[in-house]
Amino acid sequence: MSVGFFWELVAKCPRTGARAGIWHTPHGRVETPRFMPVGTVGTVKGLTPAQVETTGAQMILANTYHLHLQPGESIVEKAGGLHGFMAWNQPILTDSGGFQVFSLSELRQITETGVKFRSPRDGRLIEITPERSIEIQNALGADVIMAFDECPPPGMGYEAVKASTERTYRWLERCITAHQRPDEQALFGIVQGGIYEDLRSNAARSLVALDLPGYAIGGVSVGEETALIHRVVEVTAPLLPEHKPRYLMGVGTYREMAKAIAAGIDLFDCVIPTRFGRHGAALVRGERWNLKNARFKEDFTPLDETCSCYTCAHFTRAYLNHLVKSGEMLGYIALSLHNIAELVRFTTDIRRSILDGSFADDYALWLEDAVDVTRS
Amino acid sequence: MSVGFFWELVAKCPRTGARAGIWHTPHGRVETPRFMPVGTVGTVKGLTPAQVETTGAQMILANTYHLHLQPGESIVEKAGGLHGFMAWNQPILTDSGGFQVFSLSELRQITETGVKFRSPRDGRLIEITPERSIEIQNALGADVIMAFDECPPPGMGYEAVKASTERTYRWLERCITAHQRPDEQALFGIVQGGIYEDLRSNAARSLVALDLPGYAIGGVSVGEETALIHRVVEVTAPLLPEHKPRYLMGVGTYREMAKAIAAGIDLFDCVIPTRFGRHGAALVRGERWNLKNARFKEDFTPLDETCSCYTCAHFTRAYLNHLVKSGEMLGYIALSLHNIAELVRFTTDIRRSILDGSFADDYALWLEDAVDVTRS
Repeated sequence: MSVGFFWELVAKCPRTGARAGIWHTPHGRVETPRFMPVGTVGTVKGLTPAQVETTGAQMILANTYHLHLQPGESIVEKAGGLHGFMAWNQPILTDSGGFQVFSLSELRQITETGVKFRSPRDGRLIEITPERSIEIQNALGADVIMAFDECPPPGMGYEAVKASTERTYRWLERCITAHQRPDEQALFGIVQGGIYEDLRSNAARSLVALDLPGYAIGGVSVGEETALIHRVVEVTAPLLPEHKPRYLMGVGTYREMAKAIAAGIDLFDCVIPTRFGRHGAALVRGERWNLKNARFKEDFTPLDETCSCYTCAHFTRAYLNHLVKSGEMLGYIALSLHNIAELVRFTTDIRRSILDGSFADDYALWLEDAVDVTRS
Repeated sequence: MSVGFFWELVAKCPRTGARAGIWHTPHGRVETPRFMPVGTVGTVKGLTPAQVETTGAQMILANTYHLHLQPGESIVEKAGGLHGFMAWNQPILTDSGGFQVFSLSELRQITETGVKFRSPRDGRLIEITPERSIEIQNALGADVIMAFDECPPPGMGYEAVKASTERTYRWLERCITAHQRPDEQALFGIVQGGIYEDLRSNAARSLVALDLPGYAIGGVSVGEETALIHRVVEVTAPLLPEHKPRYLMGVGTYREMAKAIAAGIDLFDCVIPTRFGRHGAALVRGERWNLKNARFKEDFTPLDETCSCYTCAHFTRAYLNHLVKSGEMLGYIALSLHNIAELVRFTTDIRRSILDGSFADDYALWLEDAVDVTRS
């Protein structure tokens, strides 16, 4: 158990599973529910740490797989860990690399030991095992590190997912043993189990018995139907300990976050805000706008006049339309900044409604079953 | 004569023509000598206005030609002019579009009236005359607007340059007549004359007789030898009025700025800092570094520990090496930010030495004839 971490449950919604918390970490507090932007190789794409801070993001992600390939964890470690390397002094979470490695469909070879693959950068043979993943993450030095898990692909049959989930559990035990910095880095277990409710429940119960400092739900962000994702979250989240943070991996659209919060999830991450930004798209109050659209050409209002981000405080839709049409970097930067601020605000507005006791009423429309138009 | 502008001569170097001034404009003061970054289409590439402000740049440039093509001056005018459109509240200068139009070698047709060319964007026929350039610049609303001039290509013979310079003078007279906002926008005349000292001197004398609020030296930034550039500046600058600002167009390398300041120049602009930044290069104390170089991989010091820019205050060379190697936008942003801050600081350090009376001694090495290694 990590002594540098403490989960404070601040309020619970009387009509849903939603909760507001404060998670105390060695690099400061994270008020939940909250969206976390992704800084894949140690940079939230296009933004300085100072700009990311202005979005209200209190915690960010980085990807172990990418950082292992470039610059390599030893460089990051010598720089004082990720916080020093990327000049971000608030909490950071690193994933285990599993998700990326399992996405390398042709190059990998999976055994009980771990996964072997050829680097897509230089072709060298790399083996990532649970021990190696934790070793790399110990060197990267994030506040939260993730267990190395197997992510079953969508459509995998029951028996195969069952075997995979059991292996993920054995790998988790090895991760716990390998972890060298439990006082400074909280190791989260990841509940897998595909779309099978009993496998998810069983996985959740065995992980909880290990008394980890936090828990994640994995394998729901790609390829599965929205309704199935939600069902998995609804079944799994309530089984996780009330006094530990709960993180839904790779999810960060409005509706999916609202529904997951109602099920008791605290933390989210997604690449959508920066990816949309780089494609000239803005997230505005639940909608996705293409800023190249001619309707913005003479629109001298901000993206969202109720938004307090730098972009909305300084730039008009007409200026953003001009920047995006001109292919100017500032267009992508300004939209990424706004999109992150927008998703952080969506979650912090929900937090406020949980504190007020008005969540179930105020967000009733978001909790209905409907397709999220911003899902990429 | 523009009433919203006032040139204050603060100090003169006793041994060179260098001078320190404060130029008061409708959008605030510009302490000279000073480097001005370029914001071609209304954005200093990759940087927010807030970031540009932290570099110490007090005045920036924008390009009339580019803004006319996209988004068009009427959009900018409706946005409240360039200051409102791009959210930059300090002084702005627009060029006349002449330089870009004359660079379109195959597409243009030059007459006494002006220049006709096909838009490289959509093929439509565009005519820019002195009147049209001023009309566009009046709509863009920058503090300084430039006369529409003909830029003789390098290598042009004496008689041809003479005829061109005389036409530039006739165009200037038309610009003055066309200018609708002299109280808010200072129209600068541009001394042309190629490499011919007598043509430069004659042009300078006739322009000075028109009592304009400021003067520029044009046609020295491309294609000519460094020694010839310097000779032209040395001959021309002292002929310009002592109580008006002097701007050397398109020049912004260390040595060329130092020598031009010694000849009495106040203002500079150049795209080098952002262009180098986008190519992963840093300007550091007179040198040009390629941040991709492996020697930076484990170098955990800032680019320049005496530099107070955001990049140097937060990022190490190792981190910049990692960002540039990864093709991350933040690498280009961080280097552009530093490079602008570096060139602004080079000129403000010189300003301080002029105030101290130590310029000729402190910058003796920069005033020698030598090749500037950072010249692109």
